[in-house]
Amino acid sequence: MAQTFLILNGPNLNMLGTREPALYGVETLADIEAACTARGKALGIAIDFRQSNGEGELIDWIQSAPGRVAGIIINAGAYTHTSVAMHDALRAAALPVIEVHLSNVYAREAFRHHSYISPVARGIVVGFGPQGYTMAVEALYNLVGAGQARA
Amino acid sequence: MAQTFLILNGPNLNMLGTREPALYGVETLADIEAACTARGKALGIAIDFRQSNGEGELIDWIQSAPGRVAGIIINAGAYTHTSVAMHDALRAAALPVIEVHLSNVYAREAFRHHSYISPVARGIVVGFGPQGYTMAVEALYNLVGAGQARA
Amino acid sequence: MAQTFLILNGPNLNMLGTREPALYGVETLADIEAACTARGKALGIAIDFRQSNGEGELIDWIQSAPGRVAGIIINAGAYTHTSVAMHDALRAAALPVIEVHLSNVYAREAFRHHSYISPVARGIVVGFGPQGYTMAVEALYNLVGAGQARA
Amino acid sequence: MAQTFLILNGPNLNMLGTREPALYGVETLADIEAACTARGKALGIAIDFRQSNGEGELIDWIQSAPGRVAGIIINAGAYTHTSVAMHDALRAAALPVIEVHLSNVYAREAFRHHSYISPVARGIVVGFGPQGYTMAVEALYNLVGAGQARA
Amino acid sequence: MAQTFLILNGPNLNMLGTREPALYGVETLADIEAACTARGKALGIAIDFRQSNGEGELIDWIQSAPGRVAGIIINAGAYTHTSVAMHDALRAAALPVIEVHLSNVYAREAFRHHSYISPVARGIVVGFGPQGYTMAVEALYNLVGAGQARA
Amino acid sequence: MAQTFLILNGPNLNMLGTREPALYGVETLADIEAACTARGKALGIAIDFRQSNGEGELIDWIQSAPGRVAGIIINAGAYTHTSVAMHDALRAAALPVIEVHLSNVYAREAFRHHSYISPVARGIVVGFGPQGYTMAVEALYNLVGAGQARA
Amino acid sequence: MAQTFLILNGPNLNMLGTREPALYGVETLADIEAACTARGKALGIAIDFRQSNGEGELIDWIQSAPGRVAGIIINAGAYTHTSVAMHDALRAAALPVIEVHLSNVYAREAFRHHSYISPVARGIVVGFGPQGYTMAVEALYNLVGAGQARA
Amino acid sequence: MAQTFLILNGPNLNMLGTREPALYGVETLADIEAACTARGKALGIAIDFRQSNGEGELIDWIQSAPGRVAGIIINAGAYTHTSVAMHDALRAAALPVIEVHLSNVYAREAFRHHSYISPVARGIVVGFGPQGYTMAVEALYNLVGAGQARA
Amino acid sequence: MAQTFLILNGPNLNMLGTREPALYGVETLADIEAACTARGKALGIAIDFRQSNGEGELIDWIQSAPGRVAGIIINAGAYTHTSVAMHDALRAAALPVIEVHLSNVYAREAFRHHSYISPVARGIVVGFGPQGYTMAVEALYNLVGAGQARA
Amino acid sequence: MAQTFLILNGPNLNMLGTREPALYGVETLADIEAACTARGKALGIAIDFRQSNGEGELIDWIQSAPGRVAGIIINAGAYTHTSVAMHDALRAAALPVIEVHLSNVYAREAFRHHSYISPVARGIVVGFGPQGYTMAVEALYNLVGAGQARA
Amino acid sequence: MAQTFLILNGPNLNMLGTREPALYGVETLADIEAACTARGKALGIAIDFRQSNGEGELIDWIQSAPGRVAGIIINAGAYTHTSVAMHDALRAAALPVIEVHLSNVYAREAFRHHSYISPVARGIVVGFGPQGYTMAVEALYNLVGAGQARA
Amino acid sequence: MAQTFLILNGPNLNMLGTREPALYGVETLADIEAACTARGKALGIAIDFRQSNGEGELIDWIQSAPGRVAGIIINAGAYTHTSVAMHDALRAAALPVIEVHLSNVYAREAFRHHSYISPVARGIVVGFGPQGYTMAVEALYNLVGAGQARA
Repeated sequence: MAQTFLILNGPNLNMLGTREPALYGVETLADIEAACTARGKALGIAIDFRQSNGEGELIDWIQSAPGRVAGIIINAGAYTHTSVAMHDALRAAALPVIEVHLSNVYAREAFRHHSYISPVARGIVVGFGPQGYTMAVEALYNLVGAGQARA
Repeated sequence: MAQTFLILNGPNLNMLGTREPALYGVETLADIEAACTARGKALGIAIDFRQSNGEGELIDWIQSAPGRVAGIIINAGAYTHTSVAMHDALRAAALPVIEVHLSNVYAREAFRHHSYISPVARGIVVGFGPQGYTMAVEALYNLVGAGQARA
Repeated sequence: MAQTFLILNGPNLNMLGTREPALYGVETLADIEAACTARGKALGIAIDFRQSNGEGELIDWIQSAPGRVAGIIINAGAYTHTSVAMHDALRAAALPVIEVHLSNVYAREAFRHHSYISPVARGIVVGFGPQGYTMAVEALYNLVGAGQARA
Repeated sequence: MAQTFLILNGPNLNMLGTREPALYGVETLADIEAACTARGKALGIAIDFRQSNGEGELIDWIQSAPGRVAGIIINAGAYTHTSVAMHDALRAAALPVIEVHLSNVYAREAFRHHSYISPVARGIVVGFGPQGYTMAVEALYNLVGAGQARA
Repeated sequence: MAQTFLILNGPNLNMLGTREPALYGVETLADIEAACTARGKALGIAIDFRQSNGEGELIDWIQSAPGRVAGIIINAGAYTHTSVAMHDALRAAALPVIEVHLSNVYAREAFRHHSYISPVARGIVVGFGPQGYTMAVEALYNLVGAGQARA
Repeated sequence: MAQTFLILNGPNLNMLGTREPALYGVETLADIEAACTARGKALGIAIDFRQSNGEGELIDWIQSAPGRVAGIIINAGAYTHTSVAMHDALRAAALPVIEVHLSNVYAREAFRHHSYISPVARGIVVGFGPQGYTMAVEALYNLVGAGQARA
Repeated sequence: MAQTFLILNGPNLNMLGTREPALYGVETLADIEAACTARGKALGIAIDFRQSNGEGELIDWIQSAPGRVAGIIINAGAYTHTSVAMHDALRAAALPVIEVHLSNVYAREAFRHHSYISPVARGIVVGFGPQGYTMAVEALYNLVGAGQARA
Repeated sequence: MAQTFLILNGPNLNMLGTREPALYGVETLADIEAACTARGKALGIAIDFRQSNGEGELIDWIQSAPGRVAGIIINAGAYTHTSVAMHDALRAAALPVIEVHLSNVYAREAFRHHSYISPVARGIVVGFGPQGYTMAVEALYNLVGAGQARA
Repeated sequence: MAQTFLILNGPNLNMLGTREPALYGVETLADIEAACTARGKALGIAIDFRQSNGEGELIDWIQSAPGRVAGIIINAGAYTHTSVAMHDALRAAALPVIEVHLSNVYAREAFRHHSYISPVARGIVVGFGPQGYTMAVEALYNLVGAGQARA
Repeated sequence: MAQTFLILNGPNLNMLGTREPALYGVETLADIEAACTARGKALGIAIDFRQSNGEGELIDWIQSAPGRVAGIIINAGAYTHTSVAMHDALRAAALPVIEVHLSNVYAREAFRHHSYISPVARGIVVGFGPQGYTMAVEALYNLVGAGQARA
Repeated sequence: MAQTFLILNGPNLNMLGTREPALYGVETLADIEAACTARGKALGIAIDFRQSNGEGELIDWIQSAPGRVAGIIINAGAYTHTSVAMHDALRAAALPVIEVHLSNVYAREAFRHHSYISPVARGIVVGFGPQGYTMAVEALYNLVGAGQARA
Repeated sequence: MAQTFLILNGPNLNMLGTREPALYGVETLADIEAACTARGKALGIAIDFRQSNGEGELIDWIQSAPGRVAGIIINAGAYTHTSVAMHDALRAAALPVIEVHLSNVYAREAFRHHSYISPVARGIVVGFGPQGYTMAVEALYNLVGAGQARA
């Protein structure tokens, strides 16, 4: 079993903490990466944490995951709602996938209620803010086996 | 801050572990209750765990929650998709709500893709099986303040 | 002509006055019952005033109405939008029905714009708050004949 | 507080009582005006009662209402379902509005189930025939304050 | 049986022959009136031929028809697709109605495929250009009885 | 210019006059053929009048029309609403087409409101009963030129 | 009361038992005919059992039924979902109609969930395989009166 | 093989025979129970016949069926069209299910055309009135094996 | 090239500056007319500035434009979303048309997202408040040729 | 492996080359048959080439294919968009199917964008004109094995 | 107040003037940049003019805008209709945004009628060709304050 | 006539042969490129074969095609269903375009049934696996003229 989790962040998540704090909070993406790394360390898991505004680059990263990481945690941002290509990449990768959203997308505009990621995800964590990432790290840890005794 | 979490389970969840294990797994609802109670104990939280097949009884329980519990974790089962009345009850209760689903409802029939619970939930945990309940207990613990230093 | 009006209240109306006063006001359901009883008394009509969170119980009450009451005033709450069963019960009862809503449901979420009660109602009173109930008592009184000279 | 209520009637209501009595009854619009005037008199309210088949003329009358009347009762007839312009005029007028329909529009053709008036109305009275107008007069009287002690 | 047919023309039909001849031809509305009058004369029927750009005025004319004319021929122009009010006026008039369109509306934009006039019309004549009016005159003549021996 | 009009009748029109007289009247298809032949004779036009319950046979007849007849009058019956193949055949035939319906299809079930014939028709005659056929014969006569001086 | 039931089978039912046995079973249409004939014999009813792949031929058979048979049992196969023409033919025949489907069409593709036959059927039997035909024979026998004492 | 069939009846079916006889006939639910019991007796099958207006209670009964009965016959009444929870309960029960409706729901309002029961039913019997229940008893008897030699 | 621009304002725009200043600002329609006239003067263009609440009157004005003005600037207000008749009038006028909206209609209710004016407009200016009118005057000036050297 | 390919052509394809050459080109169906036969000859495959305007006849031919031909190439013409029955026949035939369209149906009317043939086809060739048929012959040859070494 | 405006151009706008001149005209994007720079110079505003075919790069540029420019003018090309990610980036940037389209997108295909940019734009300029950019520069200048005295 | 064909492959096609072989087969994209190059060589055509996961890069390549290649073969992968920008780029390129899909997209999820590429393609080849590319090479060769004698 691989020892690394890939955590992918889609468009605009690099602005976290500096824009629209009323909606997304004041923590930055670096804060979240630090929390994930810490939680991963406690579990014996390395974290590969990335962000891109480019749909193609995110797909490149998903494609390079198999054989290198044990699972993918993804907050695809707005591409969640529009990217069939990321859906296909994740399905082809054949790794356990956890979908994360900071805000409760189901309480926002109707165009945020559909996700192309969800049908290829094992689990989905929505609306917990930054805490959702560490929940996902722990849940993925349990899903991939290393953590099952502890769950 | 109240010391109890109310965990509500909707229709058919009492059959868990005995029916359709391929879809829902072999753990029973009693197993889940035990795991939640254990996790609650570790956090200093009492768990009030209930199940009903009756929409009205579930609403009664939601109505009785304010002033008695610190938050609600709810797996409304099939009522998730049809019950405006539970939506109204949860909104009126004005407590933090976490929605849980055992299976990935977004990878199933289209009529399971809409939730009347989600718009009134703070966070949503989907597809992790029984683990989703303990994730919700911990997340709710962090949300209601007692656990925030630890999150 | 029967001397009693049945006034039915659906889910969550028992919380009236204690939750979401900005939306529903501070009067309680007991206040409304008192106002209806007073208005009924002035008209020589007894009021049978009930509330339930259970769809089945509401249907039981509708079924028991014919031969016992002269008409039904119903605020079905959230069941307004989802209950084909109450639609069928009211149609079968073959009594004059008046539908009441406290808030203006047509100025709220789209899923509150459709009513299964309306097609089987004689008249509908929407958005007047508690006053809507006494308007309905008086209107039903006029509809069932006793009050027609006065209307 | 102004002492006059404006009661507006839309297209074809001038034919009331002479056409389709099975659907709309035998009372004429003059009968309804008389009943409203009588009820207004009892409440100390003057009634300004008008009818037009022209959407533009109805809008002119709505625009002239603020500062002159205390509220508007409107049966917009068929314009209910098509007139965004009347919706805008009523919203801009910023007066309490009560929508009235003689017949139960929700039991008729689907194109009568949507109202552009409802979202800008305080209250709605549907299906009571001519009685609906006097119900509206009394309800508006209570809404605008003069009658609140009495409600 | 009355001796007059009312022929109503809706918005923009007064521009006939001077605008968009590729779509509507070069005959003017006066030409059509002349043809209708001639055909009526041959049948012993007077023709009352009118045009208005105002929905309200068209409704006024429809309302004044009963008792004065034996039937209505109407090309409601664009109001065909939007006017519930004219639908109501025609239904209330309770006279035989023939709907006419110069162009084939079913071969044009989708928003011209629905007619609020058709459900209250006895017969419909579409796409024959000015000839459609004289066809309607003759058909109405046959429908109202005078012409039945000849049909 | 050809001297013959092809009049095609679709499924169930052979039962005319013997079934559902309340909806379709008591005249038989033979009566209609006789009326068309008579009207055609008066205009110097031969009538080729046919009926089939088979979509394929109706298409065969449409395909054989060009070069043999001057135009097609078609009451496609229920195939009106479902036959893309007849639409294609009529368009390919490149002859003037007049669509006829005995009853007012726009006042009946919604599935009768769409016609695949209309977009390829020059003119449409709806709801006049048998009279619609002779109206169509005369209109087609005018359209194809022979009758234009007379129109 | 007529002594014959017409049993009609639509497209592809002639292939029964030789194609897709997993979906439709191994019994042939001849087996079903034999079972129906036997059941009819026991009830004193002759069975006229037919199959066609042609919509037109099926309509011909329906048209020829009145006066000759006491009722129609029809498995219209795929034409169930597309044939307005068969709907019209059955309605015009004015005989009791029972609709049969071998498989549970409501558990298959969405385009099989709508039936043009159902609105003109007295009863519907779905999903029982060949047994559905004999159920229909017996039910029709009871419906047409001969069997009512026995039902 | 179990010797009992569970027959479940949903909301308002207890009023059968006393309300809307034009739509549902004059037989009562007790009459139907008696007919089912008689037919069951003839087949060597015990009948457990129940009715409830409560969705929860119906689910309770479905849940208790496995291991106790050989199959379920269900007329879910109005819950047919709205209850995802009953769909889930029936699917989980993993017993043969036969859906029954007294009236032809496909010839009534559009909201009665969709069934949440049908996708989990083996067979469906619609529109035969009380006879549908005994048809279902016999069909279920054949489906569960005991009766297969006889079918 | 004509020297006048016709600027048309639809329903409720006469109330500008006096109602809902939060949405539409404090400038009046007279202020806008003055600004347009000034801008026109600078460009050598006369401005014919009109407002009506009547759909028919607006159509009359559009019809009278050809041959008299060089182009039309139109803020059709609520008729933007409902008036096929104004669409037809503008198309028939065959003049350059510029559509103006004060507020950003695409950020408001869904029923304001469709415009019947846009398909017949050359250019559209949305959301700039009163400035939009002078932008339109200048743009129309450039479109009609006089100003093209300057653009 | 069988040595024959069945090539089926639906309604109106017999008119190819003589009607609408701008859309479908000048080659006739006989030209296409000749080209297919020649290409088949080169591959050692006999071609059975047929056309019918009748849905039933096309289904008959599909049903007779298994055991006689190695695969089916079908241009179902307009039945592509409407024939569930042909869908069923092709699925039941359990042969490799290639769907061909001469024109690019996806660049034409919306009602041509859905195909009931595609879900049961192995491959689809659209928009290449007559060349599409020989492409399909070659592709089918490769699919059925004989040609796989060559592909 | 910042002295620079960012003007962003989405996919395919770099081909302007060289492709489809009938639709988009002969001016190149460099011509438009020159015109914007000139107009900006006259107003004392620097113009930062960019184009990319990459959604990610456009988002990068939007993210870098706050603190550096006073406002954004954006012609997002085809991403207008599909990019939730650009919607989010623009909303987060919290700068005044003006949306520009060269052609009248509302007179083109339906999929161009929805814009994800419009809900986050202050103003929208559609259909004026290159002139639309300079209109936007001037309007933005007025919106951001520097130009308000001049407007 | 240019001597090169550009073959573009969209997102995830680089993973071909290594992921989901059950759906897409075991051939790699390099295998397909080799087959296309070989087929091109036989026809005297150079092949420029590219793949990218980036929508922007694919658009860049399309834009650079005119004047350099004789036609484009494109398998846009998931961008087929979402990219208006690629639609625009292909239309602007004004070269013959052939759309290819390896799998039968019309037999998969509904969101794969719509293509933004198809309306701008000359021909479409779906479901033939890698063979589809060589079919496209040959078809394009014939379309662009060099191969027409051979077709």
